[in-house]
Amino acid sequence: MPTVEDLVERLLAGNRRALSRLLTLIENDAPEGRRALRLLYPRSGGAHTVGITGSAGSGKSTLSGAIARETRRRGRTLGIVAIDPTSPFSQGAILGDRIRMQDLTSDREVFLRSMATRGNLGGLAPATAGVVTALDAFGKDVVLVETVGAGQDEVEVAAMADTTVVVLTPGAGDDVQAMKAGIMEIADILVVNKCDLPNADLLARQLASIVDAAPGERRTPILKTAGALNEGIEALLDALEEHRTYILASNVREVHRREQARHQVLTLARQRLIDRLVARQATDGRLDALVEQVARRELDPHSAADALIGDAD
Amino acid sequence: MPTVEDLVERLLAGNRRALSRLLTLIENDAPEGRRALRLLYPRSGGAHTVGITGSAGSGKSTLSGAIARETRRRGRTLGIVAIDPTSPFSQGAILGDRIRMQDLTSDREVFLRSMATRGNLGGLAPATAGVVTALDAFGKDVVLVETVGAGQDEVEVAAMADTTVVVLTPGAGDDVQAMKAGIMEIADILVVNKCDLPNADLLARQLASIVDAAPGERRTPILKTAGALNEGIEALLDALEEHRTYILASNVREVHRREQARHQVLTLARQRLIDRLVARQATDGRLDALVEQVARRELDPHSAADALIGDAD
Repeated sequence: MPTVEDLVERLLAGNRRALSRLLTLIENDAPEGRRALRLLYPRSGGAHTVGITGSAGSGKSTLSGAIARETRRRGRTLGIVAIDPTSPFSQGAILGDRIRMQDLTSDREVFLRSMATRGNLGGLAPATAGVVTALDAFGKDVVLVETVGAGQDEVEVAAMADTTVVVLTPGAGDDVQAMKAGIMEIADILVVNKCDLPNADLLARQLASIVDAAPGERRTPILKTAGALNEGIEALLDALEEHRTYILASNVREVHRREQARHQVLTLARQRLIDRLVARQATDGRLDALVEQVARRELDPHSAADALIGDAD
Repeated sequence: MPTVEDLVERLLAGNRRALSRLLTLIENDAPEGRRALRLLYPRSGGAHTVGITGSAGSGKSTLSGAIARETRRRGRTLGIVAIDPTSPFSQGAILGDRIRMQDLTSDREVFLRSMATRGNLGGLAPATAGVVTALDAFGKDVVLVETVGAGQDEVEVAAMADTTVVVLTPGAGDDVQAMKAGIMEIADILVVNKCDLPNADLLARQLASIVDAAPGERRTPILKTAGALNEGIEALLDALEEHRTYILASNVREVHRREQARHQVLTLARQRLIDRLVARQATDGRLDALVEQVARRELDPHSAADALIGDAD
């Protein structure tokens, strides 16, 4: 059984199996995973991280595949984090995505990791951040993170990246949906995918009017693609590279990374505090007693929370 | 300026304006709002709370309207909590929903409250729980909570209710989407809405095979509706009432409410702990220093979180 330190050394030397084993430890938030991250984190930060989000059915997986192929064609190495649900009902979809990715997975310079949306004890965002750190330290030029849908958790994950791509499709009220979910705010690049469908131009114009009304010095580019037809992919790659150049030249990346660091530290601290609190209450049964009082409507949840943390300070 | 105690007294006497003012305080997580909840919580618990969730475009708003009308036809009073986005881009959609609700809002026995998905300092779920508590204490027989989409936050909100309705529509890969988001698990009642569309029967059959494979003594009913055509609404109301009878006769509601109480107390406790932590760190600047180290890649986020809470225990 190799130690975590051995595995980290092998990972840094380019061993894919060591990477794979460490990713499992990191994803499970195991103590060894945290130890690995301590060693890997200072070696990370070089990769261009790209988050891809959008509602289900927007063709994100196919588009991610097309982006990956064009990235490889430009001679850059690639890590892909595909956030899959663990629900047994969706095995079909997972399999479908995997088949689409097959030519990529046989490329040694591409490392594909599927992640579960559930069962990450420490939360989806911290688990994803750890996986990205490992792929980054492994030396991948680009790390692509593709979310399943556009829920709040997934938007949070996509927003962690240097460059966040929001994918929309014409029709199906998708435009309105995107605005509803508040994902416009996090978009560095907007993509109208399936642009061969009717109303693609209408959607692009609607987005343009929103973008024009938004404050800020940089205008969010709006690109039209058809992932399945491999259309518009080169222009999208150009836009990704332009955004990278922009954030490196300005202090945008620095500010963004500091914000993300703060957010991540606070998220992890919160999780640890509550774990500690639950562990302590479990021994003296006070949490159970408070929950019982709330369930009986004798005490409101706010007062119960106050009572719970009364001596935790 | 009336005191919170005055407002609570007026609310309990049936004053809609007092309810309205208290809801604002509760939604904003103001100290007065918490004080109001302390008084209102013991007076709540009588209402049948119903959560309605499903992806955007599934016709939830129209369906909620139809449910509300049928509830009123059966002589029961009603509170509706519609969770709206605050994004200025979606004002159109909000207005649309409101117009559809117009006949309901002129009914004195219906109280409609629109809530923001963002800007709830204490989180969406606790804010919604507080609003539901107030409507419940106000004496409404049924409190309907309609989410905007099916993101994790919104699923959490819908799952708080006694009865959770998951709305799906045929086509658009909606079935797969629902399974992906993991919302099947929280459904007490499944609704195939827009059942006049092609493939409605196919979707219903797919759902039936999933439901049949699921463990548990109660089989989740699958209903077909067309909210806009007012079709299947009576059967849906019957199913809602059946579920209510079922959970009251068994200990299901008790167990569920205790689980929800525990979840809510822990969520609130976590929020308070982190607020306290941030406030303390703000004074000595240690959080900033740690974030800076993480941003510079000198320290990984996990170690920073450990350092941050080191003396918070």
